[in-house]
This record gives sequence, C-alpha cells and structure tokens, in this order.
Amino acid sequence: MLGEFELIRHYFAAAACARAGGEVVLGIGDDCALLDIPTGEQLAVSTDTLVAGVHFPDPCDPFLLGQRALAVAASDLAAMGATPIGFTLALTLPAADALWLAEFARGLDAMALDCSLRLIGGDTTRGPLCLTVTVFGRVPAGQALVRHGAQVGDLLCVGGALGEAAGALPLVLGQAEAAADVAEHLLARYWSPQPQLALGEALRGRATAALDISDGLLADCGHIAKASGVALRIERERVPLAAPLRRFAGDAEALRCALAGGDDYVLAFTLPPAELAALQDAQWPVHVIGCVAAGLGVQLVDATGNELPVSARGYNHFHA
Amino acid sequence: MLGEFELIRHYFAAAACARAGGEVVLGIGDDCALLDIPTGEQLAVSTDTLVAGVHFPDPCDPFLLGQRALAVAASDLAAMGATPIGFTLALTLPAADALWLAEFARGLDAMALDCSLRLIGGDTTRGPLCLTVTVFGRVPAGQALVRHGAQVGDLLCVGGALGEAAGALPLVLGQAEAAADVAEHLLARYWSPQPQLALGEALRGRATAALDISDGLLADCGHIAKASGVALRIERERVPLAAPLRRFAGDAEALRCALAGGDDYVLAFTLPPAELAALQDAQWPVHVIGCVAAGLGVQLVDATGNELPVSARGYNHFHA
Repeated sequence: MLGEFELIRHYFAAAACARAGGEVVLGIGDDCALLDIPTGEQLAVSTDTLVAGVHFPDPCDPFLLGQRALAVAASDLAAMGATPIGFTLALTLPAADALWLAEFARGLDAMALDCSLRLIGGDTTRGPLCLTVTVFGRVPAGQALVRHGAQVGDLLCVGGALGEAAGALPLVLGQAEAAADVAEHLLARYWSPQPQLALGEALRGRATAALDISDGLLADCGHIAKASGVALRIERERVPLAAPLRRFAGDAEALRCALAGGDDYVLAFTLPPAELAALQDAQWPVHVIGCVAAGLGVQLVDATGNELPVSARGYNHFHA
Repeated sequence: MLGEFELIRHYFAAAACARAGGEVVLGIGDDCALLDIPTGEQLAVSTDTLVAGVHFPDPCDPFLLGQRALAVAASDLAAMGATPIGFTLALTLPAADALWLAEFARGLDAMALDCSLRLIGGDTTRGPLCLTVTVFGRVPAGQALVRHGAQVGDLLCVGGALGEAAGALPLVLGQAEAAADVAEHLLARYWSPQPQLALGEALRGRATAALDISDGLLADCGHIAKASGVALRIERERVPLAAPLRRFAGDAEALRCALAGGDDYVLAFTLPPAELAALQDAQWPVHVIGCVAAGLGVQLVDATGNELPVSARGYNHFHA
C-alpha cells in the first residue's frame, strides 16, 4: 500500500500540474504551499465540505464525485468574481482503494482543467468518506463581488436555468427513472455543475452584489437582502426553468426546485439597469428575474404583481 | 436549532476577531474571504484534517480538541517561517450540541489568540466528527523555510524536547496512570502543542531546510534528506528528552517515542555552523542533534559514532 505522500503524488499528479499559472511558487510536498499574489490583487479563499450520505449518495461514482467536489468549491470563486489559482484537498477515506482513487482523481483532474485550478496541497486521512476542498483565487483590490452592495433600483439577475440539480435528486438516488436524454441532462447538472467563473469575472465592476445559488433561490436571495439591507423582489414567471426539468418534474415541481432546491451553482446578482445591455450584447447569460426594492427580505410576486406566500426554505444544515 | 451561518457567528465570533491584522479585508459571511498579501511577500497555505478515533480519541474534551486542531495546523506555518494571518475551519459534526460547540470554540479561540490567527471562513456540515483546518500565513518572497535546501556540513537541530506527545498516548487513551504533575505535563504536550511560530520566523534567512516533526524524528528527517538529496546523521545521545517523559516511560521508551512517535510539532532544521552562535545567544531553543552528510537517508549513531539499526518508522496513514 502506498504511503500518504506517494498516494497524493501518484493519483493526483495531473491535477497538481493542471495549470502553469505563475502564482504557484511551491506546490505539493512541503509543509505549506506558497503563492505569489500579484500587486494590486487580493486573495479570495473559500472552504467546502462534502460528507458521504449527506451531500452525495454513498456509494457513488468516484469520477463524478471528484468533478462535483471541485465544482462546488470553485463556484464560490465565481461568486466573488475571482480568477482561479489553485486548491487544497483534504480527503478522508475508509481505505485506500486504488481503483476508487484513480477514478476520483480523474474526475478531479477534469474539473481542475475546466476551471484552471491547480492542486497545491492537501491531506489524506483514514475515516468515514468526507472531502474538504479549499479554493484560492485572485481579484483586483476592491473589485470582488460581495453580498452587501445591492442598491434599490438594481435589477435582480441569475446566470442560467435553476432547479435542475435539485430536480435530478430522485434520479441521483435511483428513486425514479426518466427518458435517457432527460436523465443524462439532469444527472449532469447534479454531478458536473459548471462554475460560472467567466461570468463572475465579467461582472466585476458591474454587479453590485453576487453569490452562487447553493441553498435555493429564495434562501440565497435572502442572504443578499440581509447583507445589503434591501428587499429582493422575484417575479415568479421570469425564473428560468429548463425544458428537461419541466418535462421530468412538471411545472409546479420545477418551480419549487428552482426556488427552494439548491445545488444549482448558478450566479445570482444585482445589476444597475445601465449595465444590462452591454452584458447581454456580449452574450453573457444574464436573466433578469426581478429587482431590488426598499425594505427587507425576499418577495415572490406573480405576473400581476401580487405577492405570493413564501413558505419554502432553502437547504440549511442542522435544521430539522 | 441555529442555522449554519448563525452557528458560526454565534460560537466562533471570538476566533473571528482574534486579531486585527490588516491582511483580512473580508472575513466570515460572504462566498469567499479576502486577504491582502503585502507587496514582496508570499502566501503560505497548509491543510490538516483530524478524524475522530484516528487522530484523537472519541469522545474527548472539546476544549482540548479545539486547541489541538488549530495548533497542529499552525505548526506548518512555523515550519515555513511564515507569519500567521488566519484560518478556515471545516467542521463536520454528528449533531449541533451547544455545550460541545461552546467548549470547542473556547479551545479554538485560546489557540487562535496564542498564534495570532483569525478565523476567516469555514463550513459546518453534519456527519461523523472530523475537522479540516486550513491556515494562511505570509513570508517575504524567497525566504520560506523549505525542505530541499539542506547542505552537506550543516548542523541538524531541533527546537525542543521530543517524544512527549507520543509518550502521553497511554494517558490520553486512559490506559495508564501517572503522578499528577507528570500526567499534567505530558497531557498538555499532546493536547496543546505550542507551534514554534516565533522560532520559525527567527530561522528565516538562517536555516537551510526545516519542517515540523509530526511523523517522528526519523521519518521527518527522512523527508528533508530525500528532498535535499543528502544524508542526515542523528547522534542518539543528543536527542533531547524531557525529564517527565523519562520518569514516566523510562529512557528506552522515551527515545523510541522521540525517534518514531510523532505529534511533537517541534521544528527540525538544518543550519550552517556559522549561524548557531547568534541564535543561541538570542536564547532561541536550538538543540544540535547531528549533521548533514553526503549520501542519502537518515543514519542514527551512538556516542562512539557506530551506526545503529533504524527499524522504527514514522506514523504514516494507510500503512498497516
């Protein structure tokens, strides 16, 4: 059996070389990794943990798990408008199974390449399956997309269709079946979310607040509303729902997944109206779903402007 | 029950304010934390995971666990000669027990204050007890203490007595008893290791290689030897052993703990002979235990220079 260092070196060699960015001065193999942050830029850092049986089914395909673990973490860089640098992986495993590790590393590599993230360090330990990924990015000083800048009068926007990952859960758990093309589309949205890193960079200096939707649209808009001291008004008819989800789950359930389902890893952001045309002209995926109003909290309104009751809550650990 | 954000805010508020260093531009509560790294300095990053029942007994005192989890991670900053900035905590818990969290946070706070580390982000998840701490520090460009710089002719040194944490294990596990003063001393060495951060900073520009001893002296010297392409020669009689450990375990077992026990979190480093006097004059804890020689690997010699068989191996996950 390989030792800890050999384990990392052997299986994660590709991810450790996934990009040749000049920021990584020292990668895996010493007590710390060393990064150079260019003058005038700030470091963005985020940590995410995935626990077997809580955040993903156990057992599951290790290739898909590797992809998803990194994508979920990288999405936080997108939400800050940060340019990716690298990541550390803390991997706790019941046993060092060679086939499992090779497949997991292959999934991780694929997403590392997609996201231009380099593996710069980590820790492998024995225990119940659990992964913590910490991602690092850089952003020009003062230009990070934070949650507390939304202004009354801004547009509320999202970066794409919502609800598909949550809608895919019955398929992920093997509790339902669907036509092959629908199943493939929805499962891909759960297992291989695409962090909107390029969109995040494009929103620097334009969006007034942003985050990535992980807890569901309502809950995450609530975070922006609270941090900014404003109300976010969502027009139900403008929430983008993809055709495969509507076919699979029906319109009502598709909307419920979008509002309260979570796991989308699509950006939600507030935008001064004057910024909209340039972004849409440049073909960025910007869907206006409402606006920022005076007040506090999140309002859901129908096509006639009537407020709808909001009872659904986002996913929140340690809630019943 | 508190939600995820409230959980962190409520219990870890003190650690999040533990220091007012100007590097933390944005702490807990957004998608990423933001750090300013001063011009001319590099960021040092390290990740460590502790799993219940593997790296610490379960159940255990949550105050002590909080202290130890952060100390173990901070020790990697010491090993690089980095000045502490902050840390993220990924905490996986079977349940959100208020008393447990309050005590754990109190231990974390205490060590955060000792180490001048500020909590800048994290993730709380439900699952088998497991902690991943990622620490951040800064070091002048090119001055980090790496493992690959040891030169033939250098002295081999350690920053203090070894073996006590490993020697304390029977006490930690409740498998042995000792006189109150001895037990207190040894248990403190296991549960509250003191990362040698100031020593690490003092060694910048002086030591040619360094690391912190976590796997045992022999295994960790092996890491320096391999990275530097040299042999490290350890004189058995010069390995510092503390009196409480010798009283508790006897001389032979004390030496075994020092050589192969691990968990010391004391620095080991190589030093050009010309650097020794200034460090000792300044009262830094520098114990010369051998030298760097041509060759490869680690040699253990007795008082007459005879090489001793080295069979003990350091602690290494995924080894039988």
